[in-house]
Amino acid sequence: MKPQSSKGTRDFDLIQVSRRNYVIELLRKAFQTFSFNPLETPSFENIETLMGKYGDEGDRLIFKILRSGDFMKSVSDKSNPKIKEIADKALRYDLTVPLARYVSQNSGKLSFPYKRYQIQPVWRADRPQKGRYREFLQCDADVVGSNSLWQEVEMIDLYSFAFQSLGISVEININNRKILAGIAEICGIENRLIEFTVVLDKIEKIGEEGIISELREKGFSLKEITKLKPAFRSFKNLNESIAFLKDWLNKSEQGRRGIEELEFVIKRVKDAGILKLNVSLARGLNYYTGCIFEVNALNVDIGSVGGGGRYDNLTAMFGLKNISGVGISFGLDRIMLCLEDLNLLPDGIIQFCDVVIIRVDESSSDDSYKIAQELRSSGVSVDYYPDIVKIKKQFDYAEKSGASHVIISESENDQDQIRVKNLITGESHLMNRKELLTYFQELKN
Amino acid sequence: MKPQSSKGTRDFDLIQVSRRNYVIELLRKAFQTFSFNPLETPSFENIETLMGKYGDEGDRLIFKILRSGDFMKSVSDKSNPKIKEIADKALRYDLTVPLARYVSQNSGKLSFPYKRYQIQPVWRADRPQKGRYREFLQCDADVVGSNSLWQEVEMIDLYSFAFQSLGISVEININNRKILAGIAEICGIENRLIEFTVVLDKIEKIGEEGIISELREKGFSLKEITKLKPAFRSFKNLNESIAFLKDWLNKSEQGRRGIEELEFVIKRVKDAGILKLNVSLARGLNYYTGCIFEVNALNVDIGSVGGGGRYDNLTAMFGLKNISGVGISFGLDRIMLCLEDLNLLPDGIIQFCDVVIIRVDESSSDDSYKIAQELRSSGVSVDYYPDIVKIKKQFDYAEKSGASHVIISESENDQDQIRVKNLITGESHLMNRKELLTYFQELKN
Repeated sequence: MKPQSSKGTRDFDLIQVSRRNYVIELLRKAFQTFSFNPLETPSFENIETLMGKYGDEGDRLIFKILRSGDFMKSVSDKSNPKIKEIADKALRYDLTVPLARYVSQNSGKLSFPYKRYQIQPVWRADRPQKGRYREFLQCDADVVGSNSLWQEVEMIDLYSFAFQSLGISVEININNRKILAGIAEICGIENRLIEFTVVLDKIEKIGEEGIISELREKGFSLKEITKLKPAFRSFKNLNESIAFLKDWLNKSEQGRRGIEELEFVIKRVKDAGILKLNVSLARGLNYYTGCIFEVNALNVDIGSVGGGGRYDNLTAMFGLKNISGVGISFGLDRIMLCLEDLNLLPDGIIQFCDVVIIRVDESSSDDSYKIAQELRSSGVSVDYYPDIVKIKKQFDYAEKSGASHVIISESENDQDQIRVKNLITGESHLMNRKELLTYFQELKN
Repeated sequence: MKPQSSKGTRDFDLIQVSRRNYVIELLRKAFQTFSFNPLETPSFENIETLMGKYGDEGDRLIFKILRSGDFMKSVSDKSNPKIKEIADKALRYDLTVPLARYVSQNSGKLSFPYKRYQIQPVWRADRPQKGRYREFLQCDADVVGSNSLWQEVEMIDLYSFAFQSLGISVEININNRKILAGIAEICGIENRLIEFTVVLDKIEKIGEEGIISELREKGFSLKEITKLKPAFRSFKNLNESIAFLKDWLNKSEQGRRGIEELEFVIKRVKDAGILKLNVSLARGLNYYTGCIFEVNALNVDIGSVGGGGRYDNLTAMFGLKNISGVGISFGLDRIMLCLEDLNLLPDGIIQFCDVVIIRVDESSSDDSYKIAQELRSSGVSVDYYPDIVKIKKQFDYAEKSGASHVIISESENDQDQIRVKNLITGESHLMNRKELLTYFQELKN
């Protein structure tokens, strides 16, 4: 009989909502400082807007919404209904396709480059497991409608700004699809670029030997692997890695352009010290056409807390061509874990109520409720215990609520001698009404 | 080819998000002052949690989510699949059933009375029309686990507090189910109470004559209608209406209790002047067991902007019995309309960017980007135009963006003579870097 929330979903209470809103507000502030405007799109889209945009696996993981009314009405073969016949809407799977839909639908009205941020939940029918949910918040910033490399510079600056405001030290891995294409060209594996990068992406997990044996399994020849080996190297610093790539990819025009792009960006960002050139970084290479970013938090084993890159043709799926853009996202759940692990959540972000009014008898109720009204008028958060029950029970309630104070309302008191107890220090004082108001007003400032 | 958002849904841009967040933040502040804590529940629940809780019409309007994978797997009769066979989850239809689910699921952990507010979207498969959407935000505050009438007092105070902070003048209609039951008792129509109140609820639309003819159609006798007539009266003020009801319902115990409850509440609320006793107010009477509230905004023709009341057995549907509570809700969309109609949205709630940096040539880019970085570090919101295009186009972009200033970056300038134009006043000044920083910092304070 006891009901359960649906698998892979979460309820958030005061503490969780407060912590999450703390992060969300800092991210909003960062987006706003970099002149991104908020956008909120509907939770569901027409099914044809989402289906076919994320590959077969994505299509499978999209939550589809049953047609209203007679859902079998449009089914042609009753024994074998097709998804699009019985479902006409689907829940947002990410924030990128809704952005593309919005930009295409409003292309005449928007001014480009169009910069928006979006912080909204998305839904995926993944198998729930530790740290993976079916409903989770995505936080994205995208700028579309310009090819300028200044936007890559700004995105990296935005990442540093945001993580600095959160107090999280990060390292930003960067790469460029053109460098990967250059490597493929130099090594003569142009038509197996994706295959190669999928393997290379695992280098931190499986090491150089692992990479070599996987490449062998995929049919790369020993000669090719020998040529590819410089891509497995790691470097002391940015300068060393750039110098090496310049030399290695000298004969590939694409490679040279990729390096130039990285140099343009590196030279201009505020904190080049946090950048690390990582040629194994691919992150859905099919999608990215220029710079690729991935942010890792230092001093904690959480994985990446953000990522993004340059893409072309965001809106081509909806017929609006040649819209290039750069998008980055922040992984809110991982950022939360990070802040908890590193103990970076400041005190005071949880707004517990300030005072619980504990009630000993009914005859003092009207007086103590007037105190509640006065305190609330001056912005103090007051909980007025509604029933006359054992004082112990009311104290327990107050302590569980996180309130810092209680006021004890009893008619034996002189009306101008109100007992106030500080639950944190344990101290207790008698105050008159005016002193009481002043005391709590000062507490709020 | 051009994609469309789904019928009955909305995209919200900078202006709309800012205005809505302004209202949401004031409501949060009000809830917090009255010691309600935030709760956020998942967007979807198991289908059996929601189905059967809102009547047949509600069941029809709930959006159901198709089972993942082979959705026909659990269907017994392939030619006639049942909803619960092919759908296992459903989108939140209101905030009340999720609250009941949450309280039942966590009853061992929560301390009662449990006070929560919740501001989240809900979804209904209504036919979209002006002002009615398939996705809209609900804002509810509920307290559950106590019978105390102090909670009715607090809810009315909360309503005044919240609408005062929004600057909206309101009138709060109150009624009590026990008064309606008393009327039914006195008039001998106990078993037709709901039927009667459904008709009575329309009195403002159809007037006394309309009510009488509808009651006749429903089979009420002339004798009964004559007895019921006092319920159609309107009164000058609270005292007059209470005095009349006391006399009229004197012989009904329920009626007397209803009046006592109202008197208790009226005597204690902060602004009794905004209360109006309205015996025609029923609002889903099946649900409410004590006081009933409805808030109307004055000076504007918008309809009710909030409502609520006392209910018993919120969680009985999930097997947890005897949990009484009071709940109120705020109609965000209507509140927005109200604020717009009455011109009550303050200036400055939309955070446009402060300055767009307009770029005349590439050679000054590095200098002007450094200015962007410095300004951002001190909290100024800066948009850095990414491309070197006609200055007219960049000015248009800046004006459309709502920025109050532009900085014109050109290499002819002495590096310490930067041109800043105020787009609101039209004034233009040359400043050195230090002056520029000071100027914008002052603008932010």
